[in-house]
Amino acid sequence: MRFGVIGAGRIGKIHAANVASRKDCEVRLIADADAGAADALAKALGAKVAGIDDILGAKDIDAVAICAPTDMHADLIEKAARAGKAAFCEKPVDMASARIRECLKVVETCGTPLMIGFNRRFDPNFAALEKRLREGEVGDIEIVSITSRDPAPPPVSYIARSGGLFRDMMIHDFDMARFLLGEEPISVSAMGSALVDPAIGEAGDVDTAVVIMQTESGKVAQISNSRRASYGYDQRIEVHGAKGMLRADNIRATSVEFAGARGFASDRVLDFFLERYASAYRDELDAFVSAVVAGIPPRPDGQDGLRAQMLADAADQSWRSGKRVVLI
Amino acid sequence: MRFGVIGAGRIGKIHAANVASRKDCEVRLIADADAGAADALAKALGAKVAGIDDILGAKDIDAVAICAPTDMHADLIEKAARAGKAAFCEKPVDMASARIRECLKVVETCGTPLMIGFNRRFDPNFAALEKRLREGEVGDIEIVSITSRDPAPPPVSYIARSGGLFRDMMIHDFDMARFLLGEEPISVSAMGSALVDPAIGEAGDVDTAVVIMQTESGKVAQISNSRRASYGYDQRIEVHGAKGMLRADNIRATSVEFAGARGFASDRVLDFFLERYASAYRDELDAFVSAVVAGIPPRPDGQDGLRAQMLADAADQSWRSGKRVVLI
Amino acid sequence: MRFGVIGAGRIGKIHAANVASRKDCEVRLIADADAGAADALAKALGAKVAGIDDILGAKDIDAVAICAPTDMHADLIEKAARAGKAAFCEKPVDMASARIRECLKVVETCGTPLMIGFNRRFDPNFAALEKRLREGEVGDIEIVSITSRDPAPPPVSYIARSGGLFRDMMIHDFDMARFLLGEEPISVSAMGSALVDPAIGEAGDVDTAVVIMQTESGKVAQISNSRRASYGYDQRIEVHGAKGMLRADNIRATSVEFAGARGFASDRVLDFFLERYASAYRDELDAFVSAVVAGIPPRPDGQDGLRAQMLADAADQSWRSGKRVVLI
Amino acid sequence: MRFGVIGAGRIGKIHAANVASRKDCEVRLIADADAGAADALAKALGAKVAGIDDILGAKDIDAVAICAPTDMHADLIEKAARAGKAAFCEKPVDMASARIRECLKVVETCGTPLMIGFNRRFDPNFAALEKRLREGEVGDIEIVSITSRDPAPPPVSYIARSGGLFRDMMIHDFDMARFLLGEEPISVSAMGSALVDPAIGEAGDVDTAVVIMQTESGKVAQISNSRRASYGYDQRIEVHGAKGMLRADNIRATSVEFAGARGFASDRVLDFFLERYASAYRDELDAFVSAVVAGIPPRPDGQDGLRAQMLADAADQSWRSGKRVVLI
Repeated sequence: MRFGVIGAGRIGKIHAANVASRKDCEVRLIADADAGAADALAKALGAKVAGIDDILGAKDIDAVAICAPTDMHADLIEKAARAGKAAFCEKPVDMASARIRECLKVVETCGTPLMIGFNRRFDPNFAALEKRLREGEVGDIEIVSITSRDPAPPPVSYIARSGGLFRDMMIHDFDMARFLLGEEPISVSAMGSALVDPAIGEAGDVDTAVVIMQTESGKVAQISNSRRASYGYDQRIEVHGAKGMLRADNIRATSVEFAGARGFASDRVLDFFLERYASAYRDELDAFVSAVVAGIPPRPDGQDGLRAQMLADAADQSWRSGKRVVLI
Repeated sequence: MRFGVIGAGRIGKIHAANVASRKDCEVRLIADADAGAADALAKALGAKVAGIDDILGAKDIDAVAICAPTDMHADLIEKAARAGKAAFCEKPVDMASARIRECLKVVETCGTPLMIGFNRRFDPNFAALEKRLREGEVGDIEIVSITSRDPAPPPVSYIARSGGLFRDMMIHDFDMARFLLGEEPISVSAMGSALVDPAIGEAGDVDTAVVIMQTESGKVAQISNSRRASYGYDQRIEVHGAKGMLRADNIRATSVEFAGARGFASDRVLDFFLERYASAYRDELDAFVSAVVAGIPPRPDGQDGLRAQMLADAADQSWRSGKRVVLI
Repeated sequence: MRFGVIGAGRIGKIHAANVASRKDCEVRLIADADAGAADALAKALGAKVAGIDDILGAKDIDAVAICAPTDMHADLIEKAARAGKAAFCEKPVDMASARIRECLKVVETCGTPLMIGFNRRFDPNFAALEKRLREGEVGDIEIVSITSRDPAPPPVSYIARSGGLFRDMMIHDFDMARFLLGEEPISVSAMGSALVDPAIGEAGDVDTAVVIMQTESGKVAQISNSRRASYGYDQRIEVHGAKGMLRADNIRATSVEFAGARGFASDRVLDFFLERYASAYRDELDAFVSAVVAGIPPRPDGQDGLRAQMLADAADQSWRSGKRVVLI
Repeated sequence: MRFGVIGAGRIGKIHAANVASRKDCEVRLIADADAGAADALAKALGAKVAGIDDILGAKDIDAVAICAPTDMHADLIEKAARAGKAAFCEKPVDMASARIRECLKVVETCGTPLMIGFNRRFDPNFAALEKRLREGEVGDIEIVSITSRDPAPPPVSYIARSGGLFRDMMIHDFDMARFLLGEEPISVSAMGSALVDPAIGEAGDVDTAVVIMQTESGKVAQISNSRRASYGYDQRIEVHGAKGMLRADNIRATSVEFAGARGFASDRVLDFFLERYASAYRDELDAFVSAVVAGIPPRPDGQDGLRAQMLADAADQSWRSGKRVVLI
């Protein structure tokens, strides 16, 4: 499979390297507004620099990896679909649900494969947990609990254009909640505060938030987010059901433990997403390639992107209004 | 300190035995509508059976332990206060906040000590965690998370007269949330379902519930409850703050672990509250005696009882109305 | 059962209190060379002070708890046997195996019950592990590993008259190894050093030692001892077999864990034997009473005391000679 | 750095792939008695098949990775040294210490770099532990404990020509003990049995063994080995010292844990060395390249190989003779 990669930034580099490391795949063309970035990545992978339209028009490109800024995602997805290319796009499809709906219609019409990069589904721990849920290990699911804390907040300048914590950070947890529940939440209630940095509050956002959700059949989910965790990148899930509980814990750098006069001490959790989710990024790219090769629609797909965005919108609205929001 | 014990049921026996095991305390009189129960407990502890009024009127009784049915609590607290007795009363003071307020006015007027039996504050794990919070180990508190799951639901007949999950079961977690936050939650949102047993739903209650709360300064708390946990009585708390996280895990029967072809296996968590909180019951009775002897108001007090009940009422109302409830 | 307690020191107090806490037992008489100690304990338990001969001659005494200094044990066991009393004796029976053999012949002739206080067999964790071994959970036992480290060395004055680490400290582990293996070790090799305190070496003893042993059928055991552990009283066992491994870990003061910039931190292990083995002392006394009441020989018995002493002698000899010692 | 790889079997493939994955290294030539194996590996890595002498004589080869059968190691090391090539050789140098000594003299004379593949030193967990030991975290080292259990025994045909458990399997632990102790053990005592498979005993070997060792300064080490572990490849180390303990635990496939009616269940440990030590193999190759490039003697070196073999010989002799063996 021959890839064009659009966007040679931090996340573009990861996906491009994962494509390149597969024997059956190749990065042929790389586009980026920053010519230097595109050039460096192209050199590292033996690819060529090209414009976006060149990539979309190239006959020898089968798939595109869209790693451009968020506000370009929907346009690029549409263009890729119209060009008959399979598309792997970083989350989110767009900040506006209405725009996502339009975009997905185009993809549906064109009938091209589209996968959205909710990488956490492919974390080996979370993926194993979800598989065991589907195999019925806990019986009927009753409560999904997700804890997600970044090691440190991003710059306030980033916050201002991020769409807010619910759309920028918690969107991963909304996707995971749907993935684990196996049902759509229809009711959302959110609370949040700027406790980490008052400047985040002044920018109209929160850095600490809790959300509860409920599905039509009554299953519940709770999500807790913080933009700060002194001990690393905290990523845990727990699912409680009729027959028991399944949970996936954090990953530590080493298994070394020290015991001394003050007790037992073990490592911090892995520091951030590039490290924690390195294999998840690899596995999601593999899933995309396998699905496209097999002619099966890849998942998570555009609808998954839309539903997660709708939950993020609902949580944002709930936090702002102080009211529970019901999705129809 | 000479005690009269009102109520010789399951919880009355525990408190009476804890009084009797102290060298400086004595159970003198025991009252119960069930003469056989009163008699058996009196014999076991070398006490005498008496009527409630006898206990309250006895000059050689310093304190009463109120372990009677909930609907008698407020009356007995008032009578004990008017009789000049220190009172230790099982939670809750009453199912109705208005009645609690009346009752506390009487206690205030009489100036007698009153302690409410929120036993979990005295669990050695939770007490150590709270102490470290107050010493500033996590810095400013941001998120309190409480997980509380019973091993199995009570009979539906009990559910029907229990006041509902929020007032009967989650009230402990509301008290713990206040205890840990060190602030009053002023906003409450609840979701719940009858997933464990449809009969609980038919009785107008839930068996699975999640709640989020927020204080005026913006701290948040999340609580999750289930009436069922296949692996025992699940009691965990976690507090996240500016400088780190403190958490208290469950207690297992033994530290034995088996490793075999299917992996590693360790014990269930302790089965239920009599076992899990045995030392908490002992320590809360000690705290009551120490405070009364020292002339210090014991805690948790009537106001703690009232505030927890107000949060339970708010959660119940939020669940029923589908709306966030703000406490003034 | 009516007890006379000989020895009102640290360990005598524990056994006496455990006797007194049983409804079917009573401490009637207490003897100690230190009249003040005897008096204080007698007062605390409502018993009377008496001489050793008075206790052994008293018709209303059914059993004696021998908590006197080690060099009196064998004499007292013989006297108790001749007086027809059931005897619970702290380990060891005697420092010399020959003397133990003589003593056990007397007991055998008299036919009275004798139990030796190897308390660790009754630790709930170790007892549960041993029960599961006997139920076949790991299949045939192959390797027993025991780690035992005191928090801090005793005074050198104690070391000098202790019989040395192998007889004073590791004797518990020799008993546990026999208990877990379910077979007699017949070959012993020991190495040791004075690494904690050179004065211990000058006193002719070691403070750090490792031992390996083998049974006739080929099962092996390893024991490691240190007179020092900065993190508390380290007591762990692990048994590996054909079908898997069973292990029992240390016990911590609380389940509280802190996560901060330097990683995760949990409690020290319980500090020393009075705390760590509180329930073991209780359960061993219960086992003694139950066996005597039921007319069953209590275990661990005199032979267990003898075999542990023989292993300690062999280890001491192996360390001194630099040679493996074979027991016939 | 341009490599010739001698041996294209299981371990040769690993080292060759690790060389090939470095940007500054290249596998140029591959030799194997099995032409098909050499050819397949050469194709996979873009290398050429060659004879051993071609590799050693090639001017454009800087280093050789010796992954041939053990009985060829010493000869190949000598030839590589004489050819002026840096050599990375799988452990052991030879089964006979005398032969190792001869071989190392040749290397010394030629002055070429030689590294022996004791991969466990490079496991990230063990390497981090050792680094913290050297930084003084536990103070003076007192007891080193190593547990090493294979998931299942190799075929008896392999056992017969393996040199025996002490030289084939425990040699890794002897190297680790030296690495961790930072001193040479001078006294060795071993016990062993054929408990896993009687056929191993009939072949003159053991499958279960325990060893204790002591250094001149008195530090002690204990090693336990089994050819079987139902729960995976058990690889643990623990170091106790004056100020505390450092230990490194096993690695699990995932962090997922299930809690159900029978308690808590977590994953097996990683299955075997290719999986458990994947990063160790990578890091040891990196260490070899870095040292050679920097002109620093790589470690573990030939002397490390010799000393580990001497300890294995001593343990084998101790097991056979039933006597402690002292190394001079």
